[in-house]
Amino acid sequence: MIIQLEKKVSDQQKQHILDVVKSIHYKATEVSTQFGKYLVCIGKQDFDIRLIGSLTGVRDVHRVSDSYKLVSRKWKVNYSSIDLGDGVIIGGDELSVMAGPCSIENEDQVQKIVTHLKENNIRIMRGGVFKPRSSPYAFRGLGIDGLKMFSSICRENGIKIITEVMQVSQIREMHDYVDVFQVGARNSQNFNLLDSLGEIDKPVLIKRGMSGTIDELLQSAEYIFSAGNEKLMLCERGIRTFETAYRNTFDINAIQVLKDKTHLPVIADPSHGVGIRDYVSKIALASAVAGADGVIYEVHEVPEEAASDGQQTLNFEESKFLCKQLEALKKLVL
Amino acid sequence: MIIQLEKKVSDQQKQHILDVVKSIHYKATEVSTQFGKYLVCIGKQDFDIRLIGSLTGVRDVHRVSDSYKLVSRKWKVNYSSIDLGDGVIIGGDELSVMAGPCSIENEDQVQKIVTHLKENNIRIMRGGVFKPRSSPYAFRGLGIDGLKMFSSICRENGIKIITEVMQVSQIREMHDYVDVFQVGARNSQNFNLLDSLGEIDKPVLIKRGMSGTIDELLQSAEYIFSAGNEKLMLCERGIRTFETAYRNTFDINAIQVLKDKTHLPVIADPSHGVGIRDYVSKIALASAVAGADGVIYEVHEVPEEAASDGQQTLNFEESKFLCKQLEALKKLVL
Amino acid sequence: MIIQLEKKVSDQQKQHILDVVKSIHYKATEVSTQFGKYLVCIGKQDFDIRLIGSLTGVRDVHRVSDSYKLVSRKWKVNYSSIDLGDGVIIGGDELSVMAGPCSIENEDQVQKIVTHLKENNIRIMRGGVFKPRSSPYAFRGLGIDGLKMFSSICRENGIKIITEVMQVSQIREMHDYVDVFQVGARNSQNFNLLDSLGEIDKPVLIKRGMSGTIDELLQSAEYIFSAGNEKLMLCERGIRTFETAYRNTFDINAIQVLKDKTHLPVIADPSHGVGIRDYVSKIALASAVAGADGVIYEVHEVPEEAASDGQQTLNFEESKFLCKQLEALKKLVL
Amino acid sequence: MIIQLEKKVSDQQKQHILDVVKSIHYKATEVSTQFGKYLVCIGKQDFDIRLIGSLTGVRDVHRVSDSYKLVSRKWKVNYSSIDLGDGVIIGGDELSVMAGPCSIENEDQVQKIVTHLKENNIRIMRGGVFKPRSSPYAFRGLGIDGLKMFSSICRENGIKIITEVMQVSQIREMHDYVDVFQVGARNSQNFNLLDSLGEIDKPVLIKRGMSGTIDELLQSAEYIFSAGNEKLMLCERGIRTFETAYRNTFDINAIQVLKDKTHLPVIADPSHGVGIRDYVSKIALASAVAGADGVIYEVHEVPEEAASDGQQTLNFEESKFLCKQLEALKKLVL
Repeated sequence: MIIQLEKKVSDQQKQHILDVVKSIHYKATEVSTQFGKYLVCIGKQDFDIRLIGSLTGVRDVHRVSDSYKLVSRKWKVNYSSIDLGDGVIIGGDELSVMAGPCSIENEDQVQKIVTHLKENNIRIMRGGVFKPRSSPYAFRGLGIDGLKMFSSICRENGIKIITEVMQVSQIREMHDYVDVFQVGARNSQNFNLLDSLGEIDKPVLIKRGMSGTIDELLQSAEYIFSAGNEKLMLCERGIRTFETAYRNTFDINAIQVLKDKTHLPVIADPSHGVGIRDYVSKIALASAVAGADGVIYEVHEVPEEAASDGQQTLNFEESKFLCKQLEALKKLVL
Repeated sequence: MIIQLEKKVSDQQKQHILDVVKSIHYKATEVSTQFGKYLVCIGKQDFDIRLIGSLTGVRDVHRVSDSYKLVSRKWKVNYSSIDLGDGVIIGGDELSVMAGPCSIENEDQVQKIVTHLKENNIRIMRGGVFKPRSSPYAFRGLGIDGLKMFSSICRENGIKIITEVMQVSQIREMHDYVDVFQVGARNSQNFNLLDSLGEIDKPVLIKRGMSGTIDELLQSAEYIFSAGNEKLMLCERGIRTFETAYRNTFDINAIQVLKDKTHLPVIADPSHGVGIRDYVSKIALASAVAGADGVIYEVHEVPEEAASDGQQTLNFEESKFLCKQLEALKKLVL
Repeated sequence: MIIQLEKKVSDQQKQHILDVVKSIHYKATEVSTQFGKYLVCIGKQDFDIRLIGSLTGVRDVHRVSDSYKLVSRKWKVNYSSIDLGDGVIIGGDELSVMAGPCSIENEDQVQKIVTHLKENNIRIMRGGVFKPRSSPYAFRGLGIDGLKMFSSICRENGIKIITEVMQVSQIREMHDYVDVFQVGARNSQNFNLLDSLGEIDKPVLIKRGMSGTIDELLQSAEYIFSAGNEKLMLCERGIRTFETAYRNTFDINAIQVLKDKTHLPVIADPSHGVGIRDYVSKIALASAVAGADGVIYEVHEVPEEAASDGQQTLNFEESKFLCKQLEALKKLVL
Repeated sequence: MIIQLEKKVSDQQKQHILDVVKSIHYKATEVSTQFGKYLVCIGKQDFDIRLIGSLTGVRDVHRVSDSYKLVSRKWKVNYSSIDLGDGVIIGGDELSVMAGPCSIENEDQVQKIVTHLKENNIRIMRGGVFKPRSSPYAFRGLGIDGLKMFSSICRENGIKIITEVMQVSQIREMHDYVDVFQVGARNSQNFNLLDSLGEIDKPVLIKRGMSGTIDELLQSAEYIFSAGNEKLMLCERGIRTFETAYRNTFDINAIQVLKDKTHLPVIADPSHGVGIRDYVSKIALASAVAGADGVIYEVHEVPEEAASDGQQTLNFEESKFLCKQLEALKKLVL
């Protein structure tokens, strides 16, 4: 059960509500976010919901039977959207495009990609400075200095930044240079990181784990929301299956299931979702048709020379063509 | 290596070619189909391909390194299409729609669905009369009498039939009432059935196995082709993964990989691919965008009362809407 | 619900029982096997089981809530065993060993392996004459003539034969030369084949499908049992997962789940279960510890020269050592 | 390539070695652990290994083609063992048993389990104080105060502690109360955590990720080793597959593959590996037969009342019986 509280609920009123919740043997967790105050109540007993609904200080009350609560559409039927400022909105009627290299490499690279983005009306740039790599001997990214350079060029050009955060201690140092924090697939159930990202007021994109279920992804989002941050979006990036003809199996079903179960925006990552350059664009288009609120893909001036993930990275021409196709698709009233 | 022979190659010429093939330590399999004569040659030694290309009786010769040969695009770059007669073509520039119930139930049901198909310009009806069921106690279909009734109604209305064949002994009795034989997911590697379907001159649709790799699907097609039947199409119908939020994981990546690797038409089955009615239509549309040559889906006047698979079956209204959307998508130049 | 009938139940008595079953809205399937007569009744309504239990002609009645019925331990708590004659028993207190080559190749090969088996007190020889192969161009086995040779040598030496049957039409021709029919992983849900194997009086071993669930395997067994053949055993042979370090993932959990859910003997196939020769023996031992009633593994005089599956085939020395280890394990009271 | 350096190598000698490595276009990473000094060199060029081997300061040099290096058996054929002090050794000829509750609950619980462990000669107790939970609303463990209590009771009784660390900031506060740090399945690729655990001198057990490959597990171990900590062991705890009859699929194959590929001790976690109490003991025994260096399982006085994971937790009687069986198995010369 989710109890939405009035913004101006008094401590006394809240205490009375908590007492009533306790009296029906529910365990309440208080949640206070950028946008609202909630009591998330867990229990099993059946009761007359009007018992709660009639209390002073209660704005609304909803039964939510899902394992996740605040991210469920059971209480918030209308889809959420996230405002990054300067007219950049994720969710709602938008089809957001986020593009950029796997890894930030140097100023020249960032500058060229920024120019490409601007030419194609892309407002958000992706690019990793802290790179999770299977091998400890692989390139791990430029780190915080790379992020500062990345941010500086993007700010000058009105481009928003999404980049991966790998551990709690990075949040503070990255904070001012980032527009959207990305939680990578390998950290999808790094609960301490999720908790900490709940305590800040910056949007977060959570990638699904390699073999994470849809339910687990939603519960990971619940961690952040219940810690205070509603500015959340989810990302389908392919799952691990027996098939070896491509890198990951993009789960197109998940796009719809997520849009059905949660009010959060859903972004598709076709680059990791299939992992082979020739196939990336059509997965992007298919995701848009299936209902995704946006796509995030890898682009590089010369993919063959990219520091990482070149095999799944579009070149500028392919990226430009994809943007046109996405535009055409958006206009099609399906 | 695939050696395409001249149609009028003499026995003597062919023997000479076989001798040369043997001399370079390759093992040749003779294949004669509706459309051509081939020698499929397996071996490891490197040699000058002109040695073969220059022989009398050889039309063309191609190195094919894939585990499958005749179904590979390595020798036949142009896509194949299949003519079912009466202007019904699968493959090429067409986006074929095949729809119908999971199981054929009775005349009234078939008649109503046929009417629905005609109203929506659908030319091919699916419907099972031999049903593979996990439990021996479940409804196993109307059998051959049901097929005759099904066929009779469809023929009167200019509708083509695709239906599943489960074993070799059914091929002959079904032959005259069927336009496309379907090999189900559970029989995707029933090699004897594949062999036998290679000996007839009727189109065959092969579904991917529940955990069949793309390579295995192509090799199953190779069975039929190499036994003499080129009228083949493949069907992606979802694979088995860890995710339990839906019935199967529709593998949108496979659509593209298949279009890349083989010249055969590729059909998407969104009904089994996701298994939940509300999500079927968007998977159909996403498949079309990803490059599928057609979709096959389940439709029923009253899905809730269907003899099987009702939970993933569209009603007439949903089906009608899907057809309109597919039509709109086709017009969009992507 | 399973109703065990008296062997001498009269037609009139049976009809009366069927009438009562119908009156409570259950659908009955009559099953008559080598060992008993049963009515398998499917329905949802709750009722007093004594209503059935008290009828003349009823030996016993059991509620069975599983999706499979006759193979469930819910009605038959004691484990079944299968008598192959000449003192060769599968199940019960035995730990059966079945060994032999992937493919039967020639008389010399069979003779050598038979000698090896006898030296190590192995009473059952495996060996394929009809081989399911992914590629149509691969060696498909010696066929029925190979089986006759295989059988002739084994009979002379008191060795029982288990070999794979791939299609219905082979059952009759193979029948007299086979002691146990094997249903391969790819045919695990070939329901027509299962039906036909239910109509004969020869033991059948059913392999689990590549991605077959335990429940599906039990339902496949139910097909054979309900068609009249109780002489059944199940085989775990590894499942398909994301891991590529070995051929299949041997599911050691399944051994126990099967022993818990069904009264049928459970055999482990470590050769396919891991697919790498060095690891086969320990998987065999682990399976025995986990409760398997037997193991079936591949052995060849010179694995490197085997016509198929050499990479997972033990040589005679390894096989001899494994037999000793299995013997030692059997003596250990765990 | 791994270059083992002499312990007393001078800076000048090392620099010369690094220069030679650079001259053959290899990239060297210096590693200094509790036990040795190494240069891990990554490159592709072929060269005469004696070029390196003959240099002053080089103790030994090994080509290692695996993606992981220092944890590979390619350079260290003899198995590693870890000394926890007081005669408690993991690896080598030992079969270690680690047991305890999923979560530490209170003093009384710890005391009772410690008594049970001592009665059964178990020297290592597991028990979580920081619990990774899918839902933010679930019990997350007693935290550092719980660990202090846990440690205090164990120290008095000569019992070693293994417990999970979830984030970098916990390492320091947990350090003095822990004998083995456990990295959980969800953190198996939390590279920052791995890096930090490489900088301490306490043993670490790394669990395989839910869908982590064996190769990825070994590379995660490489992170810790290359950061300076050789006291490592690996844990197979079941992987995620399509099967839903149990919680995870215990990968018995992995035990052997790991013993083949790495010199690190390999521990089996049968509790998570199958997730159903009745099946845990046999998986433990099967793991031991397959070559595991130890087992870690969940035990509780009253599993039904455990704060978490009760469904897969043994009671004292079951645990006692398992210990006897493991003892018997150890004596069996296999």
